[in-house]
Amino acid sequence: MFDSLSLDTTNKSSELDVLIIGAGPAGLMAAASLLRYGISNIRIIDKRSTKIFTGQADGLNPRSLEIFQVLGMGTRIQDEVLELAEIRFWNPDSTGRIRRTSRIPDTIPGISRFRQSVVHQGRIERIFLDKIAEWSTPSHASRTGIESLYEDTRPQVQVERAVCPDMLSLPSLSASALSDLPEDRITVRLRHLTEKEALPAQFSPTAASDGIFRSNMFQDDALDACPVGLPSEEYLETVHCRYIIGADGARSWTRKAVGFELVGESANFFWGVLDGIVITDFPDIRARCAIHSAHNGSAMVIPRENDLVRLYIQIAQPEQGKRPNRSDITPEKLLQSAQLILSPYKLEMPKVEWFTCYEIGQRLADHWVWNDRIFMAGDACHTHSPKTGQGMNISMADTFNLTWKLAHVLQKKADPKILKSYEIERAQVAAELIEFDQKFARLFSGKPAKDVLDESGISMEEFQTTMEKSNRFSSGTSVDYQPSELVCKEKTNKREFSYQDDLARKLPIGPRFYSQQVVGVADAKAYQLADLVGADGRWTILIFGGDVTQYSECRYRLEKLSEYLASDAGSPIRKYTPKGVDLDSIINCLTIVASKQASLEYEQFHPVLRPKVGKYGIQAYKKIFTDDESYHQGHGKAYESYGINPKVGCIAIIRPDQYVSWVTSIENHAGLASFFDAFMLEP
Amino acid sequence: MFDSLSLDTTNKSSELDVLIIGAGPAGLMAAASLLRYGISNIRIIDKRSTKIFTGQADGLNPRSLEIFQVLGMGTRIQDEVLELAEIRFWNPDSTGRIRRTSRIPDTIPGISRFRQSVVHQGRIERIFLDKIAEWSTPSHASRTGIESLYEDTRPQVQVERAVCPDMLSLPSLSASALSDLPEDRITVRLRHLTEKEALPAQFSPTAASDGIFRSNMFQDDALDACPVGLPSEEYLETVHCRYIIGADGARSWTRKAVGFELVGESANFFWGVLDGIVITDFPDIRARCAIHSAHNGSAMVIPRENDLVRLYIQIAQPEQGKRPNRSDITPEKLLQSAQLILSPYKLEMPKVEWFTCYEIGQRLADHWVWNDRIFMAGDACHTHSPKTGQGMNISMADTFNLTWKLAHVLQKKADPKILKSYEIERAQVAAELIEFDQKFARLFSGKPAKDVLDESGISMEEFQTTMEKSNRFSSGTSVDYQPSELVCKEKTNKREFSYQDDLARKLPIGPRFYSQQVVGVADAKAYQLADLVGADGRWTILIFGGDVTQYSECRYRLEKLSEYLASDAGSPIRKYTPKGVDLDSIINCLTIVASKQASLEYEQFHPVLRPKVGKYGIQAYKKIFTDDESYHQGHGKAYESYGINPKVGCIAIIRPDQYVSWVTSIENHAGLASFFDAFMLEP
Repeated sequence: MFDSLSLDTTNKSSELDVLIIGAGPAGLMAAASLLRYGISNIRIIDKRSTKIFTGQADGLNPRSLEIFQVLGMGTRIQDEVLELAEIRFWNPDSTGRIRRTSRIPDTIPGISRFRQSVVHQGRIERIFLDKIAEWSTPSHASRTGIESLYEDTRPQVQVERAVCPDMLSLPSLSASALSDLPEDRITVRLRHLTEKEALPAQFSPTAASDGIFRSNMFQDDALDACPVGLPSEEYLETVHCRYIIGADGARSWTRKAVGFELVGESANFFWGVLDGIVITDFPDIRARCAIHSAHNGSAMVIPRENDLVRLYIQIAQPEQGKRPNRSDITPEKLLQSAQLILSPYKLEMPKVEWFTCYEIGQRLADHWVWNDRIFMAGDACHTHSPKTGQGMNISMADTFNLTWKLAHVLQKKADPKILKSYEIERAQVAAELIEFDQKFARLFSGKPAKDVLDESGISMEEFQTTMEKSNRFSSGTSVDYQPSELVCKEKTNKREFSYQDDLARKLPIGPRFYSQQVVGVADAKAYQLADLVGADGRWTILIFGGDVTQYSECRYRLEKLSEYLASDAGSPIRKYTPKGVDLDSIINCLTIVASKQASLEYEQFHPVLRPKVGKYGIQAYKKIFTDDESYHQGHGKAYESYGINPKVGCIAIIRPDQYVSWVTSIENHAGLASFFDAFMLEP
Repeated sequence: MFDSLSLDTTNKSSELDVLIIGAGPAGLMAAASLLRYGISNIRIIDKRSTKIFTGQADGLNPRSLEIFQVLGMGTRIQDEVLELAEIRFWNPDSTGRIRRTSRIPDTIPGISRFRQSVVHQGRIERIFLDKIAEWSTPSHASRTGIESLYEDTRPQVQVERAVCPDMLSLPSLSASALSDLPEDRITVRLRHLTEKEALPAQFSPTAASDGIFRSNMFQDDALDACPVGLPSEEYLETVHCRYIIGADGARSWTRKAVGFELVGESANFFWGVLDGIVITDFPDIRARCAIHSAHNGSAMVIPRENDLVRLYIQIAQPEQGKRPNRSDITPEKLLQSAQLILSPYKLEMPKVEWFTCYEIGQRLADHWVWNDRIFMAGDACHTHSPKTGQGMNISMADTFNLTWKLAHVLQKKADPKILKSYEIERAQVAAELIEFDQKFARLFSGKPAKDVLDESGISMEEFQTTMEKSNRFSSGTSVDYQPSELVCKEKTNKREFSYQDDLARKLPIGPRFYSQQVVGVADAKAYQLADLVGADGRWTILIFGGDVTQYSECRYRLEKLSEYLASDAGSPIRKYTPKGVDLDSIINCLTIVASKQASLEYEQFHPVLRPKVGKYGIQAYKKIFTDDESYHQGHGKAYESYGINPKVGCIAIIRPDQYVSWVTSIENHAGLASFFDAFMLEP
């Protein structure tokens, strides 16, 4: 199909389930989560020869931290991030001097068990790379307690650097991704670059920042700092893929190759970013600050890990239609601007770790997906200003939304039509992001500063109110997916599902599942429900059985449901779980009752709710929980928090990416079956 | 001095500050903490050729978890341990059938921010080994934010395996450990074993458990599994040491070499231990259970990480004066005993991971320290029954008590007389342990089981009461050190320190410092005070300044204290900090006021309380805190918890190992100076 120069000199597979193009946060999340779900015939390539070591994106919102946690990466991320607590607003007083005018919490209290945090992109990439190595090692399954359904013949997956795609050949529109015929695959030619071609500027002997860069190297990054194994002569390779994820950034090759475009405008506001060590008498340098000066533009202060501070600094507006000269923007000039904004406070930066500048602009891809086969994600679909820390978070959330669906299709667990929900769900989020960013950027970059003080300028009250409102959006927890087979909302859903508002008043369908603490019946320990649900590719049925000690009707309903789930008469668990594998392999049932822990015996629950699992057929003990006081961590009040009546109970279906699919009555056995029948495939 | 066969074929130093003999938990804690404090000219040897991979000790008490946390190892430990929540008691009913009779929390609520946990010794060793590698890497200091006082010329420290000492030559009693004369050193001859000599039984090709063992290997242990670099022929090496830590276990070579003895008796109770995967209908297999059967002896159930369960099983008493035949004790026989004890419940163990047996006995070393130069620690000083999970915890606490003192002496920061406190403090703990263990073992092993039901048998009430009481002891938080220069208790102290009971009623002198949450003035973030204090070898002065917003007398007292600390007139901070290094390098001051966070400005505090530090002289921002409500983590109520009056305040001095040295009035400037003058040395 291509010229015959192609030379396959690696032992990597050229018949791939998924090719991931780009190893930034979106691509790394795709690779890590696919491996976590058991999809190992994948490759991930990046045109850069090394990972990111410093600078770049640095904000992690609570939702990203929730995702890391349930994927099994939480502890290490938590160990490295710097949490932010408060936003402080500084505005000019009547004399034009900046004053602190107010404070708000940086994460709305109660919105998540995690808080807005910062750590630079290089560390997040590091943790992903380590998890990719761990999860692509054959012994992974037994270590994590996940028994894989599928034969584990994984090669170790690594990011292949200095590799870029240069030709793409599409199969016919009617070709099935699951077909094994060569002509039904997407064919991509990969160019393996030499070190010279791929070397980033930071490694160039003439780069001024070279010394700074190396002195900041983390120990565990050392092996990635110097590209090894790159070819001395460029060569070509051809791969044949069922699916492609194009996570190759704002200038995405993949997007251009399939003919999609980023559409939008630039706002003609220019900003610079400086990361470094700061010496100042500005009192709020260790809090996030939004500063509007009277005459010198705006700045944002973001404290960072390791005593660093990031400054976002507005650059003087060039003449209408003109752009600032990039070579004019130096760390020294950015610092001068910051000094003017922060005046009369002193500001010095004896060590600059990283700097950049950007023009604020918002662009959205006109299409996200080619024929349910090639999926664009991250900056390849949406670009905007970095100041609100949304880019990396939303990019990772893009691929986290996609990969479980791809895994379901590749593992023949679900109909490929579920892939359609990717663009529906994520394009909506991106559109909200763009809308948010336009409003925020206008308010923050403002009109020329002199207007701030007169009536035609932007209102500082409006700015603060917007920022407060935006806090929920930027936490990532307000995403509310549209109805589909995977999100069964009332009325708007084509299939007629009964939905009783009063079953779980505060557990809405569409948003992400909010975690609460429950207590184990077998071990009296406190657990976070979201940790128990996990994100390992399985569906979860949360059975809120009510107070089974006090109410016999609760016991009766739970028993009836259990009998149904255990029966051959349509039970989705029985129907969609292959013979011979654990009963919780596809759909995991967790039962949460609302009785005193000491009044319950684990063995009193129906065996289908506590199946025997694993190689040795031992009882699974993390299946039955109760909403009770714990010895050491208080009372989770899960029923109250979800708005569930302990006399009634309910069932909640949670997607593999921990979004709420459906809430229904514990007696709605047929509905439960019907939910899964809409898209699941029998083994 | 020895025969001339000695061959130094390594590039390791033979002139050592500290030689650590034994790389179990006590030895590894010694090495890790010495490195943390900046003592890098150390070596650690072990006669075994590999680390422990499974089995052995498995309990971590809250105090050990506190120590790991403040040393900077907490996150990774927390990620691997299994927390225990509840102890359940099972006793025979009137028909002789075992019944659950009661439940108590496994960790007394409120006693610590951590909870009783289990993880096998091999994982703890793994984390220590990784930290030893990290902390002996020259770039460590800048990564952790600690700027070392001393030139950083550390070689990478690694456990040297298959190396055992075989001759010891002591210097004269009057020789100074700090002398550089060769004759003033302790000389030790080390024997480097060949692989054959050092190979543990588990690696022997005939070992039945070989397959089990390898299948349980953790990925990150793989490199340690097969001994490499061992010599093909044994050779000898001579090293000259200032200090030796003998952490070489119950059969300690070091202890014998200096002529000390373990004194005590065995109780003639025999127990077996089985670790494995359990299939059972016993309902409490995922809780810690103490089970007394009517006729078949006792057992303890301890749930473990990775679905494992540990069973402690009483072995039938042999005839008086006889011992069970070790070769008779097989996993099969232990399981049979357990089955009898747990009857009528069924119990199977399809996979045995590890097993052992032991005779209960309590022994204490007659001496712990040779001439303030050779320090025995861990099992080399105290042996007892393993069932209450104390051995590993108290062994690690031994060396954690010792190493900061050694570091102080080696760095010439303190008079060597402080080393005397090691035996005083730790022998007391060991004696309490032995007493506790004797009582507990008698009650648990009981009289022959038939007596349990009649009046001459042990009382189940007494057993439970003892276990409840013992919970505080076994948590490790009840340790209360004797008076010395380092612990200035009222009256009993030779120097006449004023001590006002009412200054901090609930912050007693002698026990470990109990952590509470405070809020940062600079960043509004919630912090645990113990994390801020840390364990990096520095002293901490906690200045509880009171409510400085509301009470002008609090402001006045804090200002006066600050002026004193900043002055040349005896300020211990100024006096003991070498010129040219950061003012918080030796003694770190943390100020905790009791005012509303929003009423405070960081810059309103005296500069001595927020010194400029590090290479760039930036303001230290984690120095001033307040006892206020946080945005996301509630109110720490530190003043209330420590019993400090916010109108009065106080000063608390915390040792480098986080024990409370002294509490005094904020106006007692002279006392503060006098405290440090008693043992510190001027640079």
